[in-house]
Amino acid sequence: MAKATKLVGIAFALAVALGVGVTIGWFSKPANEEKTTLDQSLEEFDFKLIDEFINAVDAQHLEKETKHLSSKIRWATSQGDYDMADYTINKWKDELDDAWSMDYQILHSWPDEQNCYARLIDTSGAEQFVLRKKEEGDEFQNDDQVLMFYNAFAPPLEEPITTTKLVYGHYCNTENVEWLLGQNANIFTDSVVICKYGGGAGRPDKGKNVKPHGAKAVLIFSDPFDASDENDLTFPDGPGIPEDTVQRGSAKYKRGDPTSPGYPSIEGAYFDDWRDLLNYTREQVESPHIWAPLPSQPFAWGDARHLLSQLEGGAVPQEWKDQSGIETLASFGGAIKNEQEFNINIAVKYERKKSQDVIGIIEGSEYPDEYVLIGNHRDSWIHGAIDAGAGMTTIFEISRLFKELKIKPKRTVIFCSWGSEEHGLMGSIEFVEEFLAVLKERAVLYINADVSFQGNEYFKAGASQQMHELVFEITDYIKDHVDENKSVTDKWVEKTEAEGRPSIGNPGLGSDYAPFHHFGGVPVIDVGFTQTTRKIGIYSTYHTAYDSYEYVKMIDPGFVAAKKVTEVTGALLIRAACSHFFPVDPAPMASYIDGLDEKLPDVGSEVSLAQQNLIKKASSSLKNQLSAIKNIYDSATSVDADKKRSFHRLLSFSKYLTDQNCCHPIQQDLQNVVVASRQEGGPATYPGISNYFGLGNKEEVQRQVGILITRLNAAADYLNLKAFSVRATNEL
Amino acid sequence: MAKATKLVGIAFALAVALGVGVTIGWFSKPANEEKTTLDQSLEEFDFKLIDEFINAVDAQHLEKETKHLSSKIRWATSQGDYDMADYTINKWKDELDDAWSMDYQILHSWPDEQNCYARLIDTSGAEQFVLRKKEEGDEFQNDDQVLMFYNAFAPPLEEPITTTKLVYGHYCNTENVEWLLGQNANIFTDSVVICKYGGGAGRPDKGKNVKPHGAKAVLIFSDPFDASDENDLTFPDGPGIPEDTVQRGSAKYKRGDPTSPGYPSIEGAYFDDWRDLLNYTREQVESPHIWAPLPSQPFAWGDARHLLSQLEGGAVPQEWKDQSGIETLASFGGAIKNEQEFNINIAVKYERKKSQDVIGIIEGSEYPDEYVLIGNHRDSWIHGAIDAGAGMTTIFEISRLFKELKIKPKRTVIFCSWGSEEHGLMGSIEFVEEFLAVLKERAVLYINADVSFQGNEYFKAGASQQMHELVFEITDYIKDHVDENKSVTDKWVEKTEAEGRPSIGNPGLGSDYAPFHHFGGVPVIDVGFTQTTRKIGIYSTYHTAYDSYEYVKMIDPGFVAAKKVTEVTGALLIRAACSHFFPVDPAPMASYIDGLDEKLPDVGSEVSLAQQNLIKKASSSLKNQLSAIKNIYDSATSVDADKKRSFHRLLSFSKYLTDQNCCHPIQQDLQNVVVASRQEGGPATYPGISNYFGLGNKEEVQRQVGILITRLNAAADYLNLKAFSVRATNEL
Repeated sequence: MAKATKLVGIAFALAVALGVGVTIGWFSKPANEEKTTLDQSLEEFDFKLIDEFINAVDAQHLEKETKHLSSKIRWATSQGDYDMADYTINKWKDELDDAWSMDYQILHSWPDEQNCYARLIDTSGAEQFVLRKKEEGDEFQNDDQVLMFYNAFAPPLEEPITTTKLVYGHYCNTENVEWLLGQNANIFTDSVVICKYGGGAGRPDKGKNVKPHGAKAVLIFSDPFDASDENDLTFPDGPGIPEDTVQRGSAKYKRGDPTSPGYPSIEGAYFDDWRDLLNYTREQVESPHIWAPLPSQPFAWGDARHLLSQLEGGAVPQEWKDQSGIETLASFGGAIKNEQEFNINIAVKYERKKSQDVIGIIEGSEYPDEYVLIGNHRDSWIHGAIDAGAGMTTIFEISRLFKELKIKPKRTVIFCSWGSEEHGLMGSIEFVEEFLAVLKERAVLYINADVSFQGNEYFKAGASQQMHELVFEITDYIKDHVDENKSVTDKWVEKTEAEGRPSIGNPGLGSDYAPFHHFGGVPVIDVGFTQTTRKIGIYSTYHTAYDSYEYVKMIDPGFVAAKKVTEVTGALLIRAACSHFFPVDPAPMASYIDGLDEKLPDVGSEVSLAQQNLIKKASSSLKNQLSAIKNIYDSATSVDADKKRSFHRLLSFSKYLTDQNCCHPIQQDLQNVVVASRQEGGPATYPGISNYFGLGNKEEVQRQVGILITRLNAAADYLNLKAFSVRATNEL
Repeated sequence: MAKATKLVGIAFALAVALGVGVTIGWFSKPANEEKTTLDQSLEEFDFKLIDEFINAVDAQHLEKETKHLSSKIRWATSQGDYDMADYTINKWKDELDDAWSMDYQILHSWPDEQNCYARLIDTSGAEQFVLRKKEEGDEFQNDDQVLMFYNAFAPPLEEPITTTKLVYGHYCNTENVEWLLGQNANIFTDSVVICKYGGGAGRPDKGKNVKPHGAKAVLIFSDPFDASDENDLTFPDGPGIPEDTVQRGSAKYKRGDPTSPGYPSIEGAYFDDWRDLLNYTREQVESPHIWAPLPSQPFAWGDARHLLSQLEGGAVPQEWKDQSGIETLASFGGAIKNEQEFNINIAVKYERKKSQDVIGIIEGSEYPDEYVLIGNHRDSWIHGAIDAGAGMTTIFEISRLFKELKIKPKRTVIFCSWGSEEHGLMGSIEFVEEFLAVLKERAVLYINADVSFQGNEYFKAGASQQMHELVFEITDYIKDHVDENKSVTDKWVEKTEAEGRPSIGNPGLGSDYAPFHHFGGVPVIDVGFTQTTRKIGIYSTYHTAYDSYEYVKMIDPGFVAAKKVTEVTGALLIRAACSHFFPVDPAPMASYIDGLDEKLPDVGSEVSLAQQNLIKKASSSLKNQLSAIKNIYDSATSVDADKKRSFHRLLSFSKYLTDQNCCHPIQQDLQNVVVASRQEGGPATYPGISNYFGLGNKEEVQRQVGILITRLNAAADYLNLKAFSVRATNEL
């Protein structure tokens, strides 16, 4: 999972929660509610199938699988990754109808480890202090399969740097950078800047914020203040982040193979030259970016402790000290004590390599052309017991039980094991690019289970708007893992202090649901078990060599969270795959659109009142059609053609909201005119308008208005039972 | 119908005929063949429905409707056009379930008649001869609704021209231009060039050919040698072209509203500034073009007779004289007798106006979400009894009989009356741009009837490859209008001297089928009744004020051709709309692809042998899947799910062959990687590769190879019953 983008997703989810307000009108089905005769004629789904599944989920199996899959290093395209692909194919061949690998030829970026270094030297050039390249814990010290700390797709340095200007930039977010410039307008000129993860600035953003002021590179560490909870002991004594580590991760803005935008990286594909992309990203200071614009080097917080102790210059604000677990933090630097200099090289190798998506399939008995997909990535930065091990374990347990329980789905079920997610959702994007048309025609739902347990307190989910009702049906039905008198929903409400229903976030950009959601408009659900909110919302050993079996045992003793998230995930899959109909409700989408409409005035005169009214007219058409089709669906008294048509329209209308020219100049996979992420600081209205407004591109704002109106109308027309008539009816 | 593009279509159809060779393996069903029990279980379609329809088609109704609709001038957006839209809505509201107008705001170009002139003057500036602006026949002389002769979207002159350099360029095709340059390398510098229609150079091509050599404008006339048959008397004494007329027509390369490429021109849409397009087309000398690159003025051949008599300079080749009906042709000019000068202005008004598509609908009883569409344009240059009257008459008679015979289709039938076709397929393109996703999901077939009778000898058709079998089933079934012992097919074979089956051309770019075929990949059939091939393949009064009711009566006495084409067209519609299944055969497509593969070596080393082999591997996948799915379809013994799935795949696979970046830099609606038109002189292989090869763009040829491989694979995957497995299977 890519954290930089995940943070955006979280920020966006918060915006969603505000936009939606209290979601309304969903349809809950507690286990003990008596069904009417009408319900039964419409809905033959028997919850006994879910009961049977839940009872069969086995914590011991989950633990065994976690141990097995985290026993080998499996970064993308490593031998461990390829071996795990073979394991997955064989497992699914045994458990499902068939399984195979879809191979892609994808551009990856790797650290050129031999040529990378970072150190303090004295005036004679003698080493004073050398930054660690990787973890030093016994288990990992001598394993040359462990990748050094690096940010994939951050550009290399054009030549090594030796500088006296070492600056502490805190989170290196815009506020921090502004403060430092206030101290000294030239502070960043020819500098190397020490940043820490978090603070609302993603991996590539830190370099982006300091590059315009002359910085040459950034160093990034994980401060235990942000990565651990207050009283955590460091692992293995507790779940806190060890001092010799830091998260790796991709610093790419654009998802997918950057050399084949919009197309799968298959044999015979056309590839842009990566050298052109590298030059572009180096020359480009302001947005939009493809890759991080500045070289960046992650390093351990134990080493940060020393570096910060060597800085000379003015004092940092007290607030920065309050936000830090590094006791040596005092000066923001600009110079180094004792005439030391900082000497660094960041070297990168670009290589196109085979990346595998493993596909396993069970053909549906009644609706073979309706696909319910479930997936997660297979690659991890090191052993990845949680990322991506948790999701792998969840999915493997489900596939195992499909065989053991002889589950025969009505719809075709497709299990997916994606490759190269950590490099920027490579495997899933290339897959969706290859099969976009077929997915638009046939995909009913994609369920994602990535970091499906990183804590053991409560279940939460992100989901497409029309899927909220399905999520709640299942979390209402399944009991909490601690208190049998509570449902999974009850605990979720309790832990998040929600009023009414818990909030379900809009899917962001952090895992393999993104191409389905943003590019295909396919309904998605992303599952996960977590703790009450931690400071940066992610477990401390994320993307380190300590994301291990031992760590999982510490945060989820007995694998009870793993079992519970597997129960919920499997139940969602079974419910969607094994019944003629399942809950679907457009009400959250209608509320969400209302929120976007309300924020239209925030773009001021950039979008005229007449245009705002045309947008609202089109969004009303969509809401009216959603409401009309829901009425048809609800009022049907038998499984007739109208019932089926209205069901599918309610599921799939989001596929008709995508447009190849919405919503971002570079991030071409963000194509949903309503739910695409807002990323450039524009107002909280429709994303195409917002993103180009944020970039100051007035002409493109105008184009986005036209695209938005066109797609809102088109989705309304898709929903309407009477062909091509929505706009004509509006005009009369 | 736009002739320039039609000629390309014809040229392409010939290429297709060669590529396909003798089509193989279709399924014919003569009327008297006995059905097996198996057939009956699969196919409940009763040909009595077609018999009943055929018997009810009424020549008197056809004649009456032709007279009515050609009684008023109805150029696009004229009052006559809007009135006819109202008439159509009311008629279809009465005959069908419902009807309405879809309105678009489309950029049109109009002649600024008051500021247009073309004349010979003497040295004092006194007028010696003035070219007519429009027909002078009694009926039209004083009707100011008659549009002057003009080429829509040819650019205006930046200022009036007075020149002594008047040059005769014959057809102004590349061969003619080369010959003249051989006489005098500077002959075109600052000249006005007299061209005639035909000779393989379309409306915009003539200016394109002479502009690089310094010409400032072209005059274009219709030579009776090309427009009439040898012994024709001129109308109204015979079907020959009168001396006071010339065809109007669009000189635009790119179809649809040029200011909204890819998007519908609806209220709120974003429009490019037409001034930018005008500047672009003026500055651009070489391909690719949007509009004609040079101002052009059509004029009457009677006036050409005088102009040519006034030319001074070398003698034209004897061949040019042999190819001319103008007795004064002698010199190719360069100067004008008696110190006369040629003085011309071409002035244009650009205006965005409401253009209406009228839609009429009958909801299908069994498959309401499967659409069979039938359509034609409503606008004509003047009265348009044939263009678009013939098709309108055909379609109106069919809608009348749907009511009278109480035909209840299984699929939804949609009648379409397109606006502004003559300006470049505006109405149909905007419609397909608006509803592309829904059409890709639901459209089963689009039937086009434009110039559906321009002669009374035999029926012919253009069609998507998989529709050939349906066409032949109907033309085998229906009897010839002259000889009851022959079928429509028999006469077609006889008149075209075909060996075996007559050739069905690949749909080109000449009428409203183009956006369905090229942009949507929707199966199409284009119908027409014609004569044995005339010199330029079109009737003499095409796009003139003489395309009138009187002219129709002369070429189709008794409206027997009109009746026969209506029988065939209606039967095609009924067959497709009223039965569970209808004939569909992928064999012609397989042969066609073989032809394209065979021509791959013609691009030489631009496409490596390894790439050629990857293309052939992908095309083999597609052919294999077509064959496999046809076997499943044929071997089904009941109307089961596999039968339906395979039927729909055989119909719709062409929708999966489209790509937004294939196949042309400007003509963005040409998106089918197999059947897009080849236009830039490249080899007769896949169109994306061919077109960019023709433009000399090596990098884009490489990109097109990747796109082609991707889409061939994607279409194969769509056809395959097992999801996502085609490429994986190939790799194993």
